[in-house]
Amino acid sequence: MNHLNFDKSEQGLLPAIVQDHESGEVLMLAYINLESWQRTIKTGKSHFWSRSRNKIWLKGESSGHIQLVKEIYIDCDQDTVVFKVKQLGGAACHKGYRSCFFRMVEDDKMKIIDEKVFNPEDVYGNDKNV
Amino acid sequence: MNHLNFDKSEQGLLPAIVQDHESGEVLMLAYINLESWQRTIKTGKSHFWSRSRNKIWLKGESSGHIQLVKEIYIDCDQDTVVFKVKQLGGAACHKGYRSCFFRMVEDDKMKIIDEKVFNPEDVYGNDKNV
Repeated sequence: MNHLNFDKSEQGLLPAIVQDHESGEVLMLAYINLESWQRTIKTGKSHFWSRSRNKIWLKGESSGHIQLVKEIYIDCDQDTVVFKVKQLGGAACHKGYRSCFFRMVEDDKMKIIDEKVFNPEDVYGNDKNV
Repeated sequence: MNHLNFDKSEQGLLPAIVQDHESGEVLMLAYINLESWQRTIKTGKSHFWSRSRNKIWLKGESSGHIQLVKEIYIDCDQDTVVFKVKQLGGAACHKGYRSCFFRMVEDDKMKIIDEKVFNPEDVYGNDKNV
């Protein structure tokens, strides 16, 4: 299904918001191109385009923290999607937190408001390119 | 506070996810530049950069559907934010729906899963540039 306007971005990338399907917590945002969108639909697992590695990225391919996509929503302009997922391993963030949004702005500072679920070195070793 | 990496995007724009502060529903996604970010912090009302109009955009300036920002979260890469807001007027979408994500993917089709809160023509007149 190609109901998305990939042409709206010069690189053909659109933002995908990932939300926990039960709690509604926003876990992360990543980018999709047409191929990652089609693979997500076909497999039921979140696929993105890695802007740092310039390749298709099955979320969880290194960590095992796969996202099972339960529902997909499309916005009014057809240039953003929401994946509602079951996050395997309990953590979406490569820094070990449940959500990538583990910091809150408070009094002009950033305050960490969550605890790590895992130690990144245990999962990724010393590979910084995750 | 400039804890965001605006340089990560060529246009200096980063995505801001807007979430209802009580229900957790994702209402919309829009883009911020440094100025809209600073105005949001200063005023407590969502400000974005309008990519179609090329100008700073106080969300609700036409419709009255202002967003009062209750909490702000920053992601691990400091290139995406979440605004948790109280949405005045009960609707974030210029098409009249509570959320811009009023369509769900089902059997390879897009299915509308919500009802309009307002009639866009009543709010915006015939101005299509909203």
